[in-house]
Amino acid sequence: MATVSPTPLLKDELDIVIPTIRNLDFLEMWRPFFQPYHLIIVQDGDPTKTIKVPEGFDYELYNRNDINRILGPKASCISFKDSACRCFGYMVSKKKYIYTIDDDCFVAKDPSGKDINALEQHIQNLLSPSTPFFFNTLYDPYRSGADFVRGYPFSLREGVPTAVSHGLWLNIPDYDAPTQLVKPLERNTRYVDAIMTIPKGTLFPMCGMNLAFHRELIGPAMYFGLMGDGQPIGRYDDMWAGWCTKVICDHLGWGVKTGLPYIWHSKASNPFVNLKKEYKGIYWQEELIPFFQSVALPKDCTTVQKCYIEISKQVKAKLGKVDDYFNKLADAMVTWIEAWDELNPSGDISAKIPNGASK
Amino acid sequence: MATVSPTPLLKDELDIVIPTIRNLDFLEMWRPFFQPYHLIIVQDGDPTKTIKVPEGFDYELYNRNDINRILGPKASCISFKDSACRCFGYMVSKKKYIYTIDDDCFVAKDPSGKDINALEQHIQNLLSPSTPFFFNTLYDPYRSGADFVRGYPFSLREGVPTAVSHGLWLNIPDYDAPTQLVKPLERNTRYVDAIMTIPKGTLFPMCGMNLAFHRELIGPAMYFGLMGDGQPIGRYDDMWAGWCTKVICDHLGWGVKTGLPYIWHSKASNPFVNLKKEYKGIYWQEELIPFFQSVALPKDCTTVQKCYIEISKQVKAKLGKVDDYFNKLADAMVTWIEAWDELNPSGDISAKIPNGASK
Repeated sequence: MATVSPTPLLKDELDIVIPTIRNLDFLEMWRPFFQPYHLIIVQDGDPTKTIKVPEGFDYELYNRNDINRILGPKASCISFKDSACRCFGYMVSKKKYIYTIDDDCFVAKDPSGKDINALEQHIQNLLSPSTPFFFNTLYDPYRSGADFVRGYPFSLREGVPTAVSHGLWLNIPDYDAPTQLVKPLERNTRYVDAIMTIPKGTLFPMCGMNLAFHRELIGPAMYFGLMGDGQPIGRYDDMWAGWCTKVICDHLGWGVKTGLPYIWHSKASNPFVNLKKEYKGIYWQEELIPFFQSVALPKDCTTVQKCYIEISKQVKAKLGKVDDYFNKLADAMVTWIEAWDELNPSGDISAKIPNGASK
Repeated sequence: MATVSPTPLLKDELDIVIPTIRNLDFLEMWRPFFQPYHLIIVQDGDPTKTIKVPEGFDYELYNRNDINRILGPKASCISFKDSACRCFGYMVSKKKYIYTIDDDCFVAKDPSGKDINALEQHIQNLLSPSTPFFFNTLYDPYRSGADFVRGYPFSLREGVPTAVSHGLWLNIPDYDAPTQLVKPLERNTRYVDAIMTIPKGTLFPMCGMNLAFHRELIGPAMYFGLMGDGQPIGRYDDMWAGWCTKVICDHLGWGVKTGLPYIWHSKASNPFVNLKKEYKGIYWQEELIPFFQSVALPKDCTTVQKCYIEISKQVKAKLGKVDDYFNKLADAMVTWIEAWDELNPSGDISAKIPNGASK
C-alpha cells in the first residue's frame, strides 16, 4: 500500500504549506516524498531574514511584507509571530488539496522499520470516503483487509466525501503546557494502525502539525484565528480551526478522519512559554466547547462561507461576553472570508492570484 | 500491563457467560485466564443433551428446562435455538460484572506473540473511565504512555463510569452474510493497539462474541431480544442490545468502549444460513437506525429499567408498523424487565435467586 508511486498521487493538485522562522533543513529528510510537490512557505517573524530552502524543491515563499502587500488592510486577519500564519498559505494556494506540516516534524517509521510516507497516506485518506453517521468497529472500512461489520446499515456504506485527514505524532505527543509540565518525559511510542472517521456531532482537538484537507471543499473554514503578536492567547489556532471545521463538516455532510499517518515530532516546545500562551485558552475553552457543541447552522447555510459567517455572528453574540477578544476574532473571521473570496473568485478557484516571492 | 496477576482482578465480582450447544473443549485454551472465575453456561437447543465441561472449572449450567422452570411464563422472552439465550445468564448472575464469549473464540496473540488475556483487558477497560463527550486523538487517555492531548477540556478529564467494553476479533471478522459471500477469504490480521470511547450520540454495531459489561449499571438493558426458533430474524440479538444499551448509556452519562482485547475467532458461520436469518434484519435495520438515532428519553427516566420500558413503548409506537414482530419484541422487552426485577430485587442484587443445575 504505502510504497512511493512512480507518479505521485495528486502531484499537480496538492500544495504543501509550511510555516517557519528558520532554514528548512528538515525538508532533506522529506525529499523522497515531498520533492514532486509544490511548497508554499509562510515565513513568520522578521521579513528581512532570509530562509534557506534546500535545492531542488519547487516553492513560493511569503513573508510578512508579502502578506501585507497582497491583502492590504485585510492582512490584519493573519496572525504574526505565531504558526497560525500558515493559513495565509491555504488562501493563496491554487490547488484542490493542502498538506501542512511543522518544520520540527520528521519522517517516522512504521513497526516494520519502514519510512512512513505521511503525505501518501493523507492522500489515501482524503480520496476515500468517510463514515460519520455510524461507527465501524473495525475502523476504516475502505482499507485493504477491512470492511463494514455485521449490523452496519447498507444505506450508509457509500460514505461521504472526506474533507479533513488529521495525522498523529510519534515521540513528542501534542500535550498542553500543564500536561507537559507534569509528564516531561512522556513519549508516544504506540503505533496504532488505524484510521477512523470522527462521528458526526463529536468535537475533537485538531492539531495543525500534520494535517491535510480538501481545500476546495473546506478551505474557507481553515482559518487559524488571531494568535501571537498582540493577542492574548496562542496555541489555540489549530483548535479553533478544528472546531469550526468540524461543525461545518457535520452540517454539510462531509467527513473528518483521524489516525494514520504518523510523523516523528522531534522536539517538545518550552512548557513555560506554552503555559503563558495557553492559560487564557485553557480557561476560555470551558466555554468554547459547549458553544461549539450547541452551534446550530440554519438550512440556508449551503456554502462553507455562509456557515463561517454565521458562526462568526454566533461567536460575537455568545462569546463576546466571555472576553472582548472574541469580538475581535469574530470580526477577523469575516475579514478572512472576504480575503479568501477576493483571492479565490467564485467558480474560478484556479484563477490567477497576486504573486508572492515565487521562485 | 497485561500479565496474569497473582490474585485475578474481580475474581469474586465477575461471571463469565457462555451460550453453547456443544461440549466446552474450547475452555481448555482459556484455562489460565478463566479458571479462577465462575462460569454461567446457558445450554441452547435440546435440554436432554449433556454438555461436557472440562474438569476444574467452577460453573452453573442452565438448559431450556431450567429456564422454563425459573421464569415460568416469562421464559417466553428468552430466545431458543439462538445464542441470544445467553442473556438469561446475565439475569441469573449475582455479580457486578459480566464477560460473555462465544465457544468458537480462542486465545489470540499480540504482535509480540504473547497470549492475550482478553478478560484482564476487559476488566481494565471497565475499571477505567470513559470519555464520551469529546474525542481524544491519542485514543484511551488513561492507558500507560497516553494522556489527553492539547485542546481537551480539563473539566472533562475525569471521565465517566464505563458500562460496556466491546472487544474485537482476529482471523474471522464479524461480517454479515452478504459480505461473507462476497469476501469468503477475508481475514482480519490487523492488530490495532487501541481502546476508545464511542462518542455520545453515536451508534455502533455491538457484537456479543467478546463482550464485557458492568452488570449492576447496565445489565437490564442487555436483553438480546427474540431470535431463533419461531422468530423471523436472527443475528440481530447483540445489535439490538447494543443500540438499546448505547442510547441508555448516553442518556444516563455512562461510557461504552471498543477496541482491545482481541480474541481469535476460529470459524466462519455458514453465509447461506446467515443470509436466511439476516435478510429481514438487513431491511428492517434501515428503519431501526433512524429510530434509535431519534429516541429521546425523558428526564424522569432515571434508571435503566425506566429507560428500557420507555424504549419498548417507542418501539411499539414507531416500529410496530414496520412489522408486527416489533410489537412482540416490545412486549418481550417488558417481560424481560419484569423477570429481571423478579430475580434481582431492588437494592439487593446479590439476593438468593432460584437455582439452576449448579455444580
